[in-house]
Amino acid sequence: MKNMMWGLVKETRGPGAVYKEVPVPSFGPDEVFVRVKATSLCGTDVHIYKWDAWAESTVVTPNVFGHEFAGVVEAVGENVKNVKVGDHISGEGHIVCGVCRACRTGNAHVCPNTKSFGITAPGCFAEYAVVKASNIIHNSKEMPFEIACLQDPLGNAVQTVLSGDIVGKSVAVIGVGPIGLMAIQVAKACGAGTIFAVDINPYRLEMAKTMGADVLINSAETPLAEALREQTGGEGVEVVLEMSGHPAAIRDGFEAAANAGRVSLLGIPTKEVSLDLSRHIIFKGLRIEGITGRKMYDTWYQMKGLLERGRIDLSPIITHRLKLEQFEEAFELMTSGKCGKIVFVHE
Amino acid sequence: MKNMMWGLVKETRGPGAVYKEVPVPSFGPDEVFVRVKATSLCGTDVHIYKWDAWAESTVVTPNVFGHEFAGVVEAVGENVKNVKVGDHISGEGHIVCGVCRACRTGNAHVCPNTKSFGITAPGCFAEYAVVKASNIIHNSKEMPFEIACLQDPLGNAVQTVLSGDIVGKSVAVIGVGPIGLMAIQVAKACGAGTIFAVDINPYRLEMAKTMGADVLINSAETPLAEALREQTGGEGVEVVLEMSGHPAAIRDGFEAAANAGRVSLLGIPTKEVSLDLSRHIIFKGLRIEGITGRKMYDTWYQMKGLLERGRIDLSPIITHRLKLEQFEEAFELMTSGKCGKIVFVHE
Amino acid sequence: MKNMMWGLVKETRGPGAVYKEVPVPSFGPDEVFVRVKATSLCGTDVHIYKWDAWAESTVVTPNVFGHEFAGVVEAVGENVKNVKVGDHISGEGHIVCGVCRACRTGNAHVCPNTKSFGITAPGCFAEYAVVKASNIIHNSKEMPFEIACLQDPLGNAVQTVLSGDIVGKSVAVIGVGPIGLMAIQVAKACGAGTIFAVDINPYRLEMAKTMGADVLINSAETPLAEALREQTGGEGVEVVLEMSGHPAAIRDGFEAAANAGRVSLLGIPTKEVSLDLSRHIIFKGLRIEGITGRKMYDTWYQMKGLLERGRIDLSPIITHRLKLEQFEEAFELMTSGKCGKIVFVHE
Amino acid sequence: MKNMMWGLVKETRGPGAVYKEVPVPSFGPDEVFVRVKATSLCGTDVHIYKWDAWAESTVVTPNVFGHEFAGVVEAVGENVKNVKVGDHISGEGHIVCGVCRACRTGNAHVCPNTKSFGITAPGCFAEYAVVKASNIIHNSKEMPFEIACLQDPLGNAVQTVLSGDIVGKSVAVIGVGPIGLMAIQVAKACGAGTIFAVDINPYRLEMAKTMGADVLINSAETPLAEALREQTGGEGVEVVLEMSGHPAAIRDGFEAAANAGRVSLLGIPTKEVSLDLSRHIIFKGLRIEGITGRKMYDTWYQMKGLLERGRIDLSPIITHRLKLEQFEEAFELMTSGKCGKIVFVHE
Repeated sequence: MKNMMWGLVKETRGPGAVYKEVPVPSFGPDEVFVRVKATSLCGTDVHIYKWDAWAESTVVTPNVFGHEFAGVVEAVGENVKNVKVGDHISGEGHIVCGVCRACRTGNAHVCPNTKSFGITAPGCFAEYAVVKASNIIHNSKEMPFEIACLQDPLGNAVQTVLSGDIVGKSVAVIGVGPIGLMAIQVAKACGAGTIFAVDINPYRLEMAKTMGADVLINSAETPLAEALREQTGGEGVEVVLEMSGHPAAIRDGFEAAANAGRVSLLGIPTKEVSLDLSRHIIFKGLRIEGITGRKMYDTWYQMKGLLERGRIDLSPIITHRLKLEQFEEAFELMTSGKCGKIVFVHE
Repeated sequence: MKNMMWGLVKETRGPGAVYKEVPVPSFGPDEVFVRVKATSLCGTDVHIYKWDAWAESTVVTPNVFGHEFAGVVEAVGENVKNVKVGDHISGEGHIVCGVCRACRTGNAHVCPNTKSFGITAPGCFAEYAVVKASNIIHNSKEMPFEIACLQDPLGNAVQTVLSGDIVGKSVAVIGVGPIGLMAIQVAKACGAGTIFAVDINPYRLEMAKTMGADVLINSAETPLAEALREQTGGEGVEVVLEMSGHPAAIRDGFEAAANAGRVSLLGIPTKEVSLDLSRHIIFKGLRIEGITGRKMYDTWYQMKGLLERGRIDLSPIITHRLKLEQFEEAFELMTSGKCGKIVFVHE
Repeated sequence: MKNMMWGLVKETRGPGAVYKEVPVPSFGPDEVFVRVKATSLCGTDVHIYKWDAWAESTVVTPNVFGHEFAGVVEAVGENVKNVKVGDHISGEGHIVCGVCRACRTGNAHVCPNTKSFGITAPGCFAEYAVVKASNIIHNSKEMPFEIACLQDPLGNAVQTVLSGDIVGKSVAVIGVGPIGLMAIQVAKACGAGTIFAVDINPYRLEMAKTMGADVLINSAETPLAEALREQTGGEGVEVVLEMSGHPAAIRDGFEAAANAGRVSLLGIPTKEVSLDLSRHIIFKGLRIEGITGRKMYDTWYQMKGLLERGRIDLSPIITHRLKLEQFEEAFELMTSGKCGKIVFVHE
Repeated sequence: MKNMMWGLVKETRGPGAVYKEVPVPSFGPDEVFVRVKATSLCGTDVHIYKWDAWAESTVVTPNVFGHEFAGVVEAVGENVKNVKVGDHISGEGHIVCGVCRACRTGNAHVCPNTKSFGITAPGCFAEYAVVKASNIIHNSKEMPFEIACLQDPLGNAVQTVLSGDIVGKSVAVIGVGPIGLMAIQVAKACGAGTIFAVDINPYRLEMAKTMGADVLINSAETPLAEALREQTGGEGVEVVLEMSGHPAAIRDGFEAAANAGRVSLLGIPTKEVSLDLSRHIIFKGLRIEGITGRKMYDTWYQMKGLLERGRIDLSPIITHRLKLEQFEEAFELMTSGKCGKIVFVHE
């Protein structure tokens, strides 16, 4: 095993990143050493790259970042029994304590002691990565690496869609970036009724159509809440999946939600949002679900079933395949919004 | 409006039925008068036709039987506000009291005061039928009548599949008569993982394949429980949908169920079944759901969403379209097992 | 039967009410005619009495108002089968359509076609009242009328407490007016862990203690969110029951909620509330439930079990028993906040 | 630390046990070394002591047995962070793999790779015990050890009671040995409606009354199913908690269950039970839950809340306090049925 590897490093606490040689990481008795085969670019990585207030308050430097990946196991620590050399794997990015109340009651995804792979701990934008054995997910060897690495964001979509009943219900996906696009596929694959895709970006609305959205709404052109009310015979939308994080869109989502409906919030607004709780939530008997990460590990098993039997097909979401050293092009694409998912193919 | 109409009548308390003219039924202030456009044949109708012990103890005679239907509203009672002339409709067959504990807590489908349309009350194998307004289901005018009339059995399938989580889970449908076939489609449309279809009838296993089953098991040729264990890497099947009513198959279903799995029982065994409760249920932490009818009316709304957006397509399940006067041929086909769903096209 | 009866009437669209003789109401074939034995005063009645913007936009005049009651059946309409003369009864105040999607899927309490007994339809502050048979609740003859009439607000409390898991969990009841006081009792009777009572009114905090609250917090004196965090070892409160409707308290509730916790909103803010959705809801994986009315009729059956077996005892919540003609005193008491529940004993 | 300690050892594969000196156990880096302060006797220990077919097929010898305990931490392994010397603790007895599907989806209590503390691994009937850190439960220092050691069986009761809705519902506890007695308290503390206690042992029925049962039924004297039907106005019991394991009682439980009711099975029948699935389960729309162990660790947190705030009081269930060397008397008492819970006070 060599000593040095190439990786994309967030080196200084400001904009940018450096593609450079760094030491190959060592692994402990409960860890797994992975040859990374494919990674993908997340909005979070853009925040790290561009360095905003969130990054300043959260991100560790210097650090190999990146957290969406698939790879092949090269070695395992001495206590590891559930993983063996040659396994095709991905990994849950939340590194949790395992013994707090949240971890012990099915809510590890909100463990207050979480470390984040690729954000506050070394990540995957490199030739090799080290993953806690308990975080390892086994992938079918038939599953392409470029698909397998997408399970991290897919898990966000799956948790959001399935945070309440979906079968036969009208669904609005507000904000159809990559996770929104996945949510459309997942909702459709899980038996949703009419699926509305909402965005202001025509490129992504077009992708939404390809993913199976039944109705497209460009909210830059059409008053969103009214359009959704009208399209649902005045009843409102039964399930609102908020993936934009934009205050106005969030308010519209609440406005458009049907009585006894559900609003699942995944998109992260950067400022406070003013809501008419009485009319938006209380009189409607609405349920709201805050969504972060993936249920550990219910969401991963749901994904496994959906992916391995072809209930969903993520390949059309990948619009660009690049090498890791083309990272600047990748971040520019992300900023432009003219892309679906960008995958780095590691060699 | 004419005074007499043609209908299929169970006249005497023994085998057979008579196609004859009977008076057009009158309707009350809370009822709806329907021109029947399509009906379909249920296993229950075969029991009525052949007259077994269940029929003797339950069925009212003389009576126009049949309970699966779609039609067009010709007139409504004076109190009826939710239905109007010209509406395309079907109807829930359980006529319930509405005020008992079951009815008032979301369990009207097991109301102890239920009357059954076409079994203990007049049904739909005729030119016209009368339906309680509160039991009316509105169909899209785009939905063919021959599909709309299948919602009654489809509702059995939907309730069975959705009586617990399904997304990503392995599912065995044991017994793939028409409801089993529908269950396969529904499970697939709702995001199930691997779907196993089990039967001893090669004709129906072939249909199961068409419906989307991933693995076929002829349990006349292969030990069922072992096959399911083996196919699931030893874990067992997460969701068993029992639709055969055969004691041996039921036992195999429990045997094959995974720890923390679910067994939903729809098929009706005619004798007692001996179970190893300790090993089959308790040590596994299994959940069992007894299924009857359709949730009133959650199941109907689920169906509406699935059908109207094309998430499922029931047309391949219809293997025969007959006229009502061809009822003898229809019952022979049902007895042979060489059919999917038989629809009577009313003129 | 006499022709005229005494009743408390909202006559004009402004402050006040008139105690006067009005015609005894007639009843239809599906209705029940009730001798009112006890009623109680709700915050909503104060809004009607004082006539605020909500009242102006909602309330029908002239109208006998009041909606919390218990009585004895004097007569029933010709179609009524579930109620008979002499029955002790109360009634659900939401008069719903029964055939919309909400009504048909267990969400009648948010039926968009609701009429409200005592608000947009004649109510119970009178000698007699007329109630739809389907809205009738049977009370045990052992239950005092003054307790039975409290089931309407008790139902709000029960629905709020039970809108998620409660056993063993820490619970903060924010705002301990009568419904908050009931919520404390219900939470305790349903196995809650530590119960925090929060208010700025020392009189009501004292009552909260009597009801079984474990910890009292006067939020006028102590920073609420900090106090709750501290009292829960830094984890936050698992269940927040918001019954104050005050924006600052609502924000504190969200702030104090634990990761993967629940916030149930019953108190009705009169203006918008600004929330940090990212930090308050999304990153916490919080669930929010908007609560209105009572589940029809699951909540009523839950109350029945709790009341009839003495799991809760509402009698200490009744601080004043008055005659209906003492209504002015009653409304003054309500305004002062120096009362629990005020009951009108009808003769 | 001394080298030898006194313990109760299952030495040979036949009836009996030996109180003797054995080596103090050593502990690994992820384990906790505990001074045992109180233990209690379970029916499982009787099976081990008397040596039946189950014991022969399952139990490891020689082994210190016993699995219900409370103690104080004397030392912790080098990796242990969630436990420190001096902590008062108990422990979950299921030692699970942590990485299988069951473990990763909230069903660790049915992990197929489970080792059992005191059955297939060393237990607690001794001066010291070694417990995996991840299995440690922290007890309040105010909680007496003799109460804290009862959390293992209490957890069975809590999981059984809470395996479905309980508030306001009629509940039959069939079989009121110690876990049944606890179930009565838990059901009452969690808001159940009428609680029926069923047994053939008058001594235990009397204890059931003390625990809060509303109605006692001696099923040796009264036909059980009929009695329960009659006592519930013909509707049947909404929740049946089967804790006897007797085939006839199990059948009666199914017979007595109400439509849309629940039957939770904890008692372990030693032979197969014949059921009328159609009438008992399917037509009723019944739900059955197989119960084993405790939910890891939801059940433990529920217990913590119930115990620490005094919602339940287990002290009246303890009828005998003995020293470990009095084990023969203890097993005789257990066999006689003339006892509640027997606690060994370790010195």
